[in-house]
Amino acid sequence: MAEKYIELDDLRFILEEVLDLSPVIGHEKYQEYDLENIQMMLDSFKEFSDRELFPYSTEMDTKPVYFKEGQIYVHPHIEKVNAGLAEMGWFGAMFDYENHGIQMPMTVYRAIDLIMNAANNSAPGYALLTAGAAKLIITFGSQELQDTYVEKMANGEWMGSMCLTEPQAGSSLSDIKTSASDNGDGTYNIEGQKIFISGGDMQFTDNVIHLTLARIEGAPAGTKGISLFVVPKNRLTADGGLEYNDVQSIAEFEKVGQQGFATVHLGFGGKNDCKGWLVGEPGRGLQYMFQMMNGARIGTGVMGAGIASAAYQASLQYANERNQGRKLNKSGVKDATTEQISIMNHADVRRMLLLQRAVTEGSFALILECSRYFDLEHLAEGEAKHDYELIMELLTPIVKTYPAEQGQTSVSNGLQVLGGYGFTMDFPLQQYYRDIRIMSLYEGTTGIQSQDLLGRKMTMNKGRALKLFGKEVYAVINEAQGYEDLKGHANDLDEAFKTLEATLAHLFPNAAAGDFETFLADANVMMELFSTLVIGWQWLKMGVAAKKALNAGATKRPKAFYEGKLLTLRYFYKFEMPRIASCAVTLTNTDMLTIKGEGEELIL
Amino acid sequence: MAEKYIELDDLRFILEEVLDLSPVIGHEKYQEYDLENIQMMLDSFKEFSDRELFPYSTEMDTKPVYFKEGQIYVHPHIEKVNAGLAEMGWFGAMFDYENHGIQMPMTVYRAIDLIMNAANNSAPGYALLTAGAAKLIITFGSQELQDTYVEKMANGEWMGSMCLTEPQAGSSLSDIKTSASDNGDGTYNIEGQKIFISGGDMQFTDNVIHLTLARIEGAPAGTKGISLFVVPKNRLTADGGLEYNDVQSIAEFEKVGQQGFATVHLGFGGKNDCKGWLVGEPGRGLQYMFQMMNGARIGTGVMGAGIASAAYQASLQYANERNQGRKLNKSGVKDATTEQISIMNHADVRRMLLLQRAVTEGSFALILECSRYFDLEHLAEGEAKHDYELIMELLTPIVKTYPAEQGQTSVSNGLQVLGGYGFTMDFPLQQYYRDIRIMSLYEGTTGIQSQDLLGRKMTMNKGRALKLFGKEVYAVINEAQGYEDLKGHANDLDEAFKTLEATLAHLFPNAAAGDFETFLADANVMMELFSTLVIGWQWLKMGVAAKKALNAGATKRPKAFYEGKLLTLRYFYKFEMPRIASCAVTLTNTDMLTIKGEGEELIL
Repeated sequence: MAEKYIELDDLRFILEEVLDLSPVIGHEKYQEYDLENIQMMLDSFKEFSDRELFPYSTEMDTKPVYFKEGQIYVHPHIEKVNAGLAEMGWFGAMFDYENHGIQMPMTVYRAIDLIMNAANNSAPGYALLTAGAAKLIITFGSQELQDTYVEKMANGEWMGSMCLTEPQAGSSLSDIKTSASDNGDGTYNIEGQKIFISGGDMQFTDNVIHLTLARIEGAPAGTKGISLFVVPKNRLTADGGLEYNDVQSIAEFEKVGQQGFATVHLGFGGKNDCKGWLVGEPGRGLQYMFQMMNGARIGTGVMGAGIASAAYQASLQYANERNQGRKLNKSGVKDATTEQISIMNHADVRRMLLLQRAVTEGSFALILECSRYFDLEHLAEGEAKHDYELIMELLTPIVKTYPAEQGQTSVSNGLQVLGGYGFTMDFPLQQYYRDIRIMSLYEGTTGIQSQDLLGRKMTMNKGRALKLFGKEVYAVINEAQGYEDLKGHANDLDEAFKTLEATLAHLFPNAAAGDFETFLADANVMMELFSTLVIGWQWLKMGVAAKKALNAGATKRPKAFYEGKLLTLRYFYKFEMPRIASCAVTLTNTDMLTIKGEGEELIL
Repeated sequence: MAEKYIELDDLRFILEEVLDLSPVIGHEKYQEYDLENIQMMLDSFKEFSDRELFPYSTEMDTKPVYFKEGQIYVHPHIEKVNAGLAEMGWFGAMFDYENHGIQMPMTVYRAIDLIMNAANNSAPGYALLTAGAAKLIITFGSQELQDTYVEKMANGEWMGSMCLTEPQAGSSLSDIKTSASDNGDGTYNIEGQKIFISGGDMQFTDNVIHLTLARIEGAPAGTKGISLFVVPKNRLTADGGLEYNDVQSIAEFEKVGQQGFATVHLGFGGKNDCKGWLVGEPGRGLQYMFQMMNGARIGTGVMGAGIASAAYQASLQYANERNQGRKLNKSGVKDATTEQISIMNHADVRRMLLLQRAVTEGSFALILECSRYFDLEHLAEGEAKHDYELIMELLTPIVKTYPAEQGQTSVSNGLQVLGGYGFTMDFPLQQYYRDIRIMSLYEGTTGIQSQDLLGRKMTMNKGRALKLFGKEVYAVINEAQGYEDLKGHANDLDEAFKTLEATLAHLFPNAAAGDFETFLADANVMMELFSTLVIGWQWLKMGVAAKKALNAGATKRPKAFYEGKLLTLRYFYKFEMPRIASCAVTLTNTDMLTIKGEGEELIL
């Protein structure tokens, strides 16, 4: 069976050799962090994952979350997982000390979350959502709300969730109907239903704090009428006890994958006794919620990359253990009298494994790069802060989508490496194939992310985010030009960037003319083009770091480690980068056939 | 819930307007077939599928085949399905009258099989394998074997299977070990194990006739030492009864999809009492088996296309019923005070649905085109016969692989149309997503098919198959040039064919130099290039037929039907065809990085 789910050295290489972490851990806020204790933290969470997460991955799939008599039941081992995570300070890890946290840089936080999701993608989500919910209260909530909720959430005593989607308003948040009427005592009466609530309830917590979008009576239609509320499952009584706040678990969604992670249908105020507390100002709920959504989007990318990693390790192990077939000799014949060879020797198997590596480690690199931007944004001030924010905004749809979409391709190739066995329940690949499918649906589908990318992120501030991104890309191209082996790839990336610019120059006039339907019709193809370019940038950056390490005598890691990086870089530039040009052909084709014409009801 | 799984008119359009069936049904062998009674047959099997197959699709998934105390148990409804199919003459449908068949042309047979697999892909496989096994006996077996087995198999009384794979010899058939020792009485003593045997056993038949590859003692190593045997589960006694022939069901493979179709681990001769009867000559087993394998490969494509069809119909229904979101106005804003619109109005949803149509109906067209070549091959003589055989050989890996690989993409996009609901067990998309995943593993993985395509089919007879194929392609290009709307597509297909030729001209010298590893390393990418071109050819051919029908006033089907075909053609040429050029870039890149160098053990 699969014995490994992640290669820790891949994360360390990025943290220690690819990214310059010094402006983050050199800052006084993070003075208690250095590369050495970051390594110890990674080791310690890896050890925890080896012991408490990975061994339960299959079981959480085969004994899924279930609903019975008004209660959601998660796998019994979740109790121990959450207790362990609480002990390690994980729930509040990203919070400042004053907010009961351990002030962990986001770059380190995401690296650890990658490890845990690779080990078992059903388990770490509860803590992530709790942290995201508490963080919303910290950022936008009153002191009273903070005093009431943050410590217990940071300790993992209470859980948290984000409540957006409703049955009639999936991706269209402006249509949510959950209502809030002012009780005149600082509370609101909440009524409505929320669906697909990840981590919405479990039997192992005294309380779940739902950060809930609702519409105050009389508020205008659309997103401007949406406010954010804290709605606890159980509310505090005057004597400090808890009483039921009329938040009911109505059902658990039966899903095809990630079956260990609760996805709840919640009813608020079924008995007209559900109280909510307003966060910040009325009408700004969606704006606030974007903090948590952006975090959850990156978290989705982390889950996808984690699953892709576990699948790669399982395929790699199988390929190393399985003998099958022979090579053709000079006459194009196989000599059946010789022993069969390891399938690791077949070019096509190596192609599939390299595809898996390219996607997995490319995703790792982008996730950590963006986490570093996040840290720098929060340390910087003025224009620099704004610039980091812009580049984060531009890359968030990619961090969310690339590991989700290409992660599926990666896992499917991983399953293929095992042949027929990959399709059987005897190996974990079929589970990863099911688990990862949700990632392109969570937190805004790929279609929504693509519209966001092209329609908002690429145009905002007169395209400044894209300009800043271009500077980052060309910094790597210029550095890569200094290495003979990398020059060709540097030229390819340069050409890809020019293709992007030319394609956008073709598309932008539609937006300027107010024809947004034409402008955005093929946004999904732009997502494919741009995300391929982004990961190409990350691979070239890793290639430069690998060359540097080899030229310096490979002191930190074995020579073969760095050669593996360069091999995967070559894979990416031969097999993945050419798609950029074909995407551009599609995007500059002016046959707007997907836009529905009048009277075309019948022709689909 | 989903109400539909196939659009019968899509099949009729191909049979009546795209393909010229007259040389088939005009032949005296098929004098009892004409377009009218073919239509009646399709209707009758559709009605059967509506009643006996489609309503049981979910249940066969949720109550899978299981193994208990030596017996394989399939879903109880399979008994009624098989009885119904037997009554309609389906088991022997493709056999000549003299072989207890109804002499159905393969083109009609595959169209009906498409309907049934779209309705429920777990059920029709038993009949297909039984027919394939019996056909092997008819073609290569002695009169005695034919007299013993064919009638009962053609009646559906006995089932059949193909037994190739063994635990140590998945894709490498030259390594099979199952042994056959001559008993000197016309029988052989069989001993060995076979795995992944589709339809290998069930509780509802008196006998299963296993067409089994084994090695006669003393036979040479490799494929030349392999012979074919009939090995019944129960053998006939002198008095015409049945006695157990020591073929044991050892286990049922638990799979992630197609859970209603048995996949059995069989043991032969565990008690040293398993008899086999040699088919044809010793040492020619694999060669004979290719008849059944080729049939099963096309059958796999049929399953894939059937599932893709069912998924498309389910997505289409959802898209028509679900309201969500609004269009942007001229200022790039959505007016939240207006009603939400049907998601069918969103360009990205239409893109996904058109992708599904393009793959599904493109696969239908190719499957039926190849079935027509099959019929013509069997009616023709001399050089013409050989030419049809060559083109069939060339296209078989495509018919198998395109619906499998692009079918997965298609079904995954179909799931995406439903948003989060697509991931839940409330809709059938998640089942189709699991079911279709096996298609790129069955009957030779995509890797194997790709090696076969480039390494054998494209080079055989000095490339004659490819030349014949080119003639077919240019016949369509030339006809399309006559329609103003189709000229652009005709030019694109012409360019694609030239790209194929240039790419092959780059690759062939490696084969000529005996460097087969370099020649075949990227065969998988050639599969993607070539199969996209092949389906592009089929879509242009359908486009020509649609234009003809429209110009003639759309007498057979509604105008919107033909306009839908032209819309899907435009989709294919805008979104799919550009991949051909990017595949060519990869294939002509001479960085052979997937070929393992010496001493590279550690770098994957």
